[in-house]
Amino acid sequence: METKSENRSYGGTQGVYTHASEATGCDMTFGLYLPEEARTTPVPILWYLSGLTCTHENAMTKAGAQAWCAEQGIAICFPDTSPRGDDVADDEAYDLGKGAGFYVNATQDPWAKHFKMWDYITNDLPKIVGEHFAVDLDRQSITGHSMGGHGALTIAMHHPERFRSVSAFAPIAHPTQSDWGKKQLGAYLGDDTSTWAPHDSTLLMRDKGFDGPVLIDQGDSDNFLELLKPEALAEAMAAKRQEGQFRMQKGYDHSYFFISTFMEDHVNFHAEALYA
Amino acid sequence: METKSENRSYGGTQGVYTHASEATGCDMTFGLYLPEEARTTPVPILWYLSGLTCTHENAMTKAGAQAWCAEQGIAICFPDTSPRGDDVADDEAYDLGKGAGFYVNATQDPWAKHFKMWDYITNDLPKIVGEHFAVDLDRQSITGHSMGGHGALTIAMHHPERFRSVSAFAPIAHPTQSDWGKKQLGAYLGDDTSTWAPHDSTLLMRDKGFDGPVLIDQGDSDNFLELLKPEALAEAMAAKRQEGQFRMQKGYDHSYFFISTFMEDHVNFHAEALYA
Repeated sequence: METKSENRSYGGTQGVYTHASEATGCDMTFGLYLPEEARTTPVPILWYLSGLTCTHENAMTKAGAQAWCAEQGIAICFPDTSPRGDDVADDEAYDLGKGAGFYVNATQDPWAKHFKMWDYITNDLPKIVGEHFAVDLDRQSITGHSMGGHGALTIAMHHPERFRSVSAFAPIAHPTQSDWGKKQLGAYLGDDTSTWAPHDSTLLMRDKGFDGPVLIDQGDSDNFLELLKPEALAEAMAAKRQEGQFRMQKGYDHSYFFISTFMEDHVNFHAEALYA
Repeated sequence: METKSENRSYGGTQGVYTHASEATGCDMTFGLYLPEEARTTPVPILWYLSGLTCTHENAMTKAGAQAWCAEQGIAICFPDTSPRGDDVADDEAYDLGKGAGFYVNATQDPWAKHFKMWDYITNDLPKIVGEHFAVDLDRQSITGHSMGGHGALTIAMHHPERFRSVSAFAPIAHPTQSDWGKKQLGAYLGDDTSTWAPHDSTLLMRDKGFDGPVLIDQGDSDNFLELLKPEALAEAMAAKRQEGQFRMQKGYDHSYFFISTFMEDHVNFHAEALYA
């Protein structure tokens, strides 16, 4: 693992690190914020999965999470959204290939070689973070935005024993029924839609739900509402009697201005579960 | 209007009053809490509509609202849930007739004579409260529990100009599709279901929504979830992009212990709208 940078931030350290990943077969870069407490004792960790086109850097610099993670004594990790490198397949569209891993393990060419973001986020990354930093992997929570909200919700529902709470900002909530989903799941997983279902938050919520609290924020002025399909997830949450909150935030769009506005609520929400 | 009782409460006054109602054609009793501020200046008012079997008294004594209304400087009014008196029609069932007015204007015998709770709550009661007490009817909000949540939501969506915010505890959310609704709407309004639709929160939410914030709390251990149908309202709120929150509260049931736990949140939610 190589340290790319470390900056003091709110009494703790914002670092950027690169490591070779078995899952993706390439070097991967992530941001990790450690609060001051991590100097003396392992701290709980919150994973933040980013949306389409993002690298590890966007949320790290624009989501305003460090202030609240410092206050709560929680680490926050910002992974990349896809494999990277000259030999990694890509597509001209912004929503397929690099920056658009969709948090699945691709089985179809040309993606199958490197696009194993599910394994990267659930295996490789927690392993390397746990080995190198003072984080307590018995206390994990997960959040994300848009495609990353999709990733956070699907990963959490498949790993209820690992995550104490899950939240999402404007998640892609029903990808098997959306143009943000059908295209990518088809490309990465193939035409057999039975392989898509485990990657659809609404279907997972209807089927199994999550064994802990859930917080969803969605702006009502989001340009992508028709693609995100929040109503499907809201219905599924209530029908499943899922502990949690679904909030429609008036006037907010899909941007980091929306995310940063409600970041304090999300960090505090996770802190309550992580320190319970 | 006759004063039945007045008690000092959190620096203000909890009163109970009886008056003749034109709408219901009988004497009606209501509780009204006025915070200390009302001695010198008109205060905003929150209406609390109660559920099946309740009188004006249940929420007044068990919902724990006065503490928070005192803190926020808001009046709260607790109306009765039906007409009362020996000549008022009734039914042996707990969920029809007295204590079960359902906040509609009955058109069918034997109910049509007195069961005009819609007119009572929207006309008679605000008129008499506005005439006799230091409340500012330019600043009104409304809430309620179960059948009263149904009343609060339907009345608010029909009077967006009057109410700045609406909330509900475990509302009967989709009465046209529930045994808590079909029986009563049929009895009071007749077999023509087109007359039922204006009294269904889910249908109103799909159609028009509410021009202000909405807060819904629902317990996941509520015995009546199959009758309340919260998932229908949750889906309608998200599909309408309704500003607001739908919260599923783990372990809470349908009782006043549930209501009182979240009353502070609801009063603060309304205070934000009333003092905006």
